[in-house]
Amino acid sequence: MTKTKSNIGNFFEDFSLGQVIRHAAPRTVTTGDVAVYTSLYLPRFAVQSSSAFAQAIGYEQAPVDDMLVFHFVLGKTVPDVSLNALANLGYADFKFLAPVYPGDTLTATSEVIGLKENSNKKTGVVYVRSTGRNQRGEVVLDYARWVMVKKRDPDAQVGPEVVPNLPKSVAPEDLGKAVPALNVSAYDKVLAGSPYFWGDYEKGEKIDHIDGMTVEEAEHQLATRLYQNNSKVHFNQYYESQGRFGKRIIYGGHVISLARALSFNGLENVFHITAVNGGRHVNPLFAGGTVFAWSEVLDKAEIPGRSDIGALRLRLVATKDKPCAEFPLDAADASVLLDLDYWAVLPR
Amino acid sequence: MTKTKSNIGNFFEDFSLGQVIRHAAPRTVTTGDVAVYTSLYLPRFAVQSSSAFAQAIGYEQAPVDDMLVFHFVLGKTVPDVSLNALANLGYADFKFLAPVYPGDTLTATSEVIGLKENSNKKTGVVYVRSTGRNQRGEVVLDYARWVMVKKRDPDAQVGPEVVPNLPKSVAPEDLGKAVPALNVSAYDKVLAGSPYFWGDYEKGEKIDHIDGMTVEEAEHQLATRLYQNNSKVHFNQYYESQGRFGKRIIYGGHVISLARALSFNGLENVFHITAVNGGRHVNPLFAGGTVFAWSEVLDKAEIPGRSDIGALRLRLVATKDKPCAEFPLDAADASVLLDLDYWAVLPR
Amino acid sequence: MTKTKSNIGNFFEDFSLGQVIRHAAPRTVTTGDVAVYTSLYLPRFAVQSSSAFAQAIGYEQAPVDDMLVFHFVLGKTVPDVSLNALANLGYADFKFLAPVYPGDTLTATSEVIGLKENSNKKTGVVYVRSTGRNQRGEVVLDYARWVMVKKRDPDAQVGPEVVPNLPKSVAPEDLGKAVPALNVSAYDKVLAGSPYFWGDYEKGEKIDHIDGMTVEEAEHQLATRLYQNNSKVHFNQYYESQGRFGKRIIYGGHVISLARALSFNGLENVFHITAVNGGRHVNPLFAGGTVFAWSEVLDKAEIPGRSDIGALRLRLVATKDKPCAEFPLDAADASVLLDLDYWAVLPR
Repeated sequence: MTKTKSNIGNFFEDFSLGQVIRHAAPRTVTTGDVAVYTSLYLPRFAVQSSSAFAQAIGYEQAPVDDMLVFHFVLGKTVPDVSLNALANLGYADFKFLAPVYPGDTLTATSEVIGLKENSNKKTGVVYVRSTGRNQRGEVVLDYARWVMVKKRDPDAQVGPEVVPNLPKSVAPEDLGKAVPALNVSAYDKVLAGSPYFWGDYEKGEKIDHIDGMTVEEAEHQLATRLYQNNSKVHFNQYYESQGRFGKRIIYGGHVISLARALSFNGLENVFHITAVNGGRHVNPLFAGGTVFAWSEVLDKAEIPGRSDIGALRLRLVATKDKPCAEFPLDAADASVLLDLDYWAVLPR
Repeated sequence: MTKTKSNIGNFFEDFSLGQVIRHAAPRTVTTGDVAVYTSLYLPRFAVQSSSAFAQAIGYEQAPVDDMLVFHFVLGKTVPDVSLNALANLGYADFKFLAPVYPGDTLTATSEVIGLKENSNKKTGVVYVRSTGRNQRGEVVLDYARWVMVKKRDPDAQVGPEVVPNLPKSVAPEDLGKAVPALNVSAYDKVLAGSPYFWGDYEKGEKIDHIDGMTVEEAEHQLATRLYQNNSKVHFNQYYESQGRFGKRIIYGGHVISLARALSFNGLENVFHITAVNGGRHVNPLFAGGTVFAWSEVLDKAEIPGRSDIGALRLRLVATKDKPCAEFPLDAADASVLLDLDYWAVLPR
Repeated sequence: MTKTKSNIGNFFEDFSLGQVIRHAAPRTVTTGDVAVYTSLYLPRFAVQSSSAFAQAIGYEQAPVDDMLVFHFVLGKTVPDVSLNALANLGYADFKFLAPVYPGDTLTATSEVIGLKENSNKKTGVVYVRSTGRNQRGEVVLDYARWVMVKKRDPDAQVGPEVVPNLPKSVAPEDLGKAVPALNVSAYDKVLAGSPYFWGDYEKGEKIDHIDGMTVEEAEHQLATRLYQNNSKVHFNQYYESQGRFGKRIIYGGHVISLARALSFNGLENVFHITAVNGGRHVNPLFAGGTVFAWSEVLDKAEIPGRSDIGALRLRLVATKDKPCAEFPLDAADASVLLDLDYWAVLPR
């Protein structure tokens, strides 16, 4: 009998600085994926929901939801980067750079840009820059991510510590790259659902998104499989029943998509996430929990060369079983699930 | 801090007679939506299931299931019309007027055609005529609906009572508008699943649809999100656990779609719902319930100018945890969920 | 009142040797169906996942997953063949003969090729050859299947016993018919996820596919409805609560699709199931169970006239709540769900 051909994933000592990994499972995105995504989250942003609306303002057709693109790219990296991860530590310098349309095929690569063994010698932090491309080789998404990965062998010798220098936030000149020049006069605010454009939001403004969404096991499993994300903890109750929580852990990206869809109520014209500055999954979510969300306008920016769109820097907070009229964000509050810092764009 | 931008919906005193509301969230319908719909209900009508079948008899391609079109249009009206509704009271003069194909974009408007404050001053009935249109502005669906809506302020003064005069049933000359001229000789009864055409059904005939379908929480949530229907009671267990029933209430339209799909068994060639005369959600459904259905032929009609299709007026009754061999319809029977009166068409 | 028009399915004495049944519910397969399928099983084979990948090696576009084609064809046969079946006994001479692409419309016919009453006179075995065709009439799938069907009337007289002579395995010259001539030099092993081609697998080799997938009620119901398979036992908790197991029985094909998707881990380039020699659903699966899988290479074969692809004869075993590092296959082990013997192809 030969050595088994199954993949058990990379361990910390398997990574090397500068290593470039081409990930498997190229994926053609379809309107079918979009429909399943809609049935999972209830997104209502007009640009992604209606090809007629999108074409009227300058898109080829309705672009695919930004977070769906992210989930596809991240899913491809899982078997190589994070199958043996204990924690997803952070994101930085995360930019959407071209629109993705149904029919496009996505592939992904990752470069190892940092490695730092932990003092216990049992784990280390792997920093990668992951890049999603379409079938023409154009970069659609690019981001740095770091995860804590187990060592196979605590005694394995590893190279010197390298921690990459990552920006605290994406600069305004790097925003809006995935948005074609828009004909804002054709943007129908009533159809989009709100009279508020970029000039109507103020720094410091907070918005309670009001609605809550309860998550079922079948739902997050359908989502995570759609993204071809085979991380073990989301699907396998046999193992998880013996694990730390006794139950399946919901993919953190599911919470982001839920919160983003909930944020439509108050951010109706904020149709595109253009960059993520950073974010934390503060607590895990399990089936049965009801997700609520609120947002704060952290900053506003003009985008050099663009008079059609402006950028809002937003904090998006998601909670579990806790309505957000009081904008909860106590660090000690176990009900906070997500604290995301991102740039979004909307018409001016 | 500015006034919040979130939408909490209209209250009774926010509506005015003759007011026209253009609803948000235009939606391009896709074969992806059709696939999710199929996975939720198990529809098998050949015209909607097969483009080859549909084209052979005269459609451009397989049209989208009528009830999916209805759910999309209704979903758009929810944020403006019924977010603060306590009850969905009725439908009338409900007509499908043009086929919807994958690729079409649906929008919706509603006109307030009646207002009637209830004697308790806490609620009132809002009558609207809602209209769904495709991207060419053609009306695909038009119906009157009335809902009981909360008042924000019981002391608010409201206008005089206006109750619209609505027909008890749709007239035969208004039926079949969404059906192109059919080449009935190309309609393959074996592929469609039944030898029975219009002439084979008799007034008074009752049909037990035999099969039952158990509903899970994830299923009705997927459905209702697919329709972008953000009515609160379907998704939020946190609030519903404190509510009247202690659990999420399944969208009434989910029961209609289940019953319609079950009715294939006995109505295989009755491929299109052309109008709804009226209907009641007699009792609510909750996850775990098993839905059964039966039909009665209330009437038959020729459609002026059409020798290809004829109309059946059908009563469709859905029950919960109660097989329908005895055609249950006792008003005191809590197992009855739905009592729908509609016109459907089939080949002659 | 007329005789009811509902279909209650055929009983053993309703079948006659040589009878040909054209099944109802023609179905146009779409990228929507593929997306729902992906969300149900997490398949990652590059050929089916990426149109760019598929086109590069010689397909028109990404073909539809083989098992999805099978589920559609089988689903059509259920109302006529197995609505009153007590057991699905076996498959033989099962061959995929042409690729299916989104946009194709599938229909199915079955010919009765054998009938054998059981000695208790209450049931009999019906052997059918079922054939799935596309809209051009090309056969895409052809297989023999036998099921145990109830008699309506134990006293009904039936014809002489005829048991067809079916091959124990499909011959190498009948393999690979649904695979166009491939340009193997354009097959990107890194994108596909594995360096192993046909020459790298050895007879007797066993592979643990490692991962496990827990199944929810909503998931198998969505799947089975997607396939328009209306077999009663999968959907109706009202009846099943009074049945043999007290709960809904998961469609056996759901287990095959789960095991096939799990088998990607170790069989990444084994992109196509070309034939099934035989198989058994050893035990039923219920919601809440976690499915694991392992494979054994039973044989290898060159395909006459094909230098691009070779065939592996594989045993695919699925288990419930039992990891497969030890390759469990004890006949007395209630955790074994599936034991499938099939031919698959991969590049040489």
